[in-house]
Amino acid sequence: MAEPKRVGILGSGDVAKALGRGFAAHGYEVMLGTRDPKKLDAWKKETGGKVAVGTFAQAAAHGPTVVLATHGAATEAVLDQAGPQHFRGKLVLDATNPLDFSRGMPPGLLFGLTDSLGERVQRKLPDAKVVKCFNTVSNVKMVDPKFAAGPARMWICGNDAEAKRATEGILRELGWAGALDVGAIDGARWLEAMVPLWVRVGVALNTWEHMLQLVR
Amino acid sequence: MAEPKRVGILGSGDVAKALGRGFAAHGYEVMLGTRDPKKLDAWKKETGGKVAVGTFAQAAAHGPTVVLATHGAATEAVLDQAGPQHFRGKLVLDATNPLDFSRGMPPGLLFGLTDSLGERVQRKLPDAKVVKCFNTVSNVKMVDPKFAAGPARMWICGNDAEAKRATEGILRELGWAGALDVGAIDGARWLEAMVPLWVRVGVALNTWEHMLQLVR
Repeated sequence: MAEPKRVGILGSGDVAKALGRGFAAHGYEVMLGTRDPKKLDAWKKETGGKVAVGTFAQAAAHGPTVVLATHGAATEAVLDQAGPQHFRGKLVLDATNPLDFSRGMPPGLLFGLTDSLGERVQRKLPDAKVVKCFNTVSNVKMVDPKFAAGPARMWICGNDAEAKRATEGILRELGWAGALDVGAIDGARWLEAMVPLWVRVGVALNTWEHMLQLVR
Repeated sequence: MAEPKRVGILGSGDVAKALGRGFAAHGYEVMLGTRDPKKLDAWKKETGGKVAVGTFAQAAAHGPTVVLATHGAATEAVLDQAGPQHFRGKLVLDATNPLDFSRGMPPGLLFGLTDSLGERVQRKLPDAKVVKCFNTVSNVKMVDPKFAAGPARMWICGNDAEAKRATEGILRELGWAGALDVGAIDGARWLEAMVPLWVRVGVALNTWEHMLQLVR
C-alpha cells in the first residue's frame, strides 16, 4: 500500500481552508496549523473530520509538503513560531502575498521589486525547497479550477527543479493542467506584483474567479 | 468624405515600426517621429511611402492621437524634445516600458511600484489624455494579433473615460477584441510590472508571441 500523502497548511483563513478541503478531497492527510487550534473546531466538524488542526509547529512537521497560506505581513513571524527546523528538506508551497493595504485599495506591495515574500521565505527556510504557488488566484479557484477559456496552468517559481516537478505533480492532482514556471524564486517579485493588478481587475469586473493566463 | 485618421508615433525601433505599418494598414495617415529622420529613409521606402517620417515635434503635432514607442529610459527626454505643448488635449497611447537592464536579464523596473512611466508621462503632459496601451505585448502582436486561445483584449489604463473608449475603438480597428481596463493611470505600475514577468516567460519558452490574458 502506498504511503499516505501528507500536507501541512499554515494559516486559518479562506485560502488555508480552501486548500485544506481541496487537498483532503484529493486523498491527502491534511493538517491546518494555526495560532489557536480551538478556533477551528467548528470548521473541523464541517469538513467531517477530514482535516486535522494543530499548531503551526505541528502542521509544519506533519508531512513532506507544507503550504504557506498566512497573511503576507504575518508570514515571517509564523515561520519563526513554527520553527524553521521543521521545514528542512521539505517542499514548501508559498501561497502568500505581501500586499500593502496601508494606503487603501487597491493594494501595493510591502517589499517593492527588489525583494519578494517568496525570497524572504526561502531565506528564512534555507534548508527547504520553496516554490511560489497558488498566490495568483482566489481561494475559490485553487483546487479543481474551471475557467470558460479551458484548462489553466498555475504560475510557479523556485530554485529547485525537482521541487518544481513535484509541485507540478501536486497541481495536476488538484485539477490544474500544469505549471507555468517563471524561473528561480526571485520570480516571486513578479508573481506577487501580478496580484495588485488582479485585485484591480476583480474590483472593475466585480469577480474573484479570474486569473491571468499565458496565451500564445 | 470622412476626415483622414492621423496618428503620430514617437520612436524608431521595432515597436514604432510595427505600429507604424499596422496603423497605416488600417487606413491611418501615420508619421513616425525620431531624432534623426534621415536614418529611416530605407525603412520609409520599404513601407511604400505609406508612413511619413519627421521629427519628434512634427510627429507629436501630426494628429489627434500620439503613440509613445520610445525606449523607457528615454521617454521623458523625448517628450521634452517634442514639446509638451503639442500634446494638449490629445489622446496619448503610452506603449513604453521602464525596464531596468542595469543588473542584466531579466530586467527590473526603473521606478519601482510607487510610480510608473505611465504616470510620469501623464504628469509631463498634464493637458493630454494618456492611456497606457500596447506595453504588454511584443511588437509582432500589436496589430492584428492571432492567438491560439482565440480573440484577445489589450490591457489599458488611464484617467479619462472618454479617452479609454476612444482607445478601445482604435484597438478594435487594429484587430483586438477590445480592452481590459484596469483603472486610472496609476494602474500602469502593474501593467509595467507585468513585463519583467513576460520577459521571463519569453526566455523560458523561447517565444515573444505570448501575452497574459484574463480568463474567468
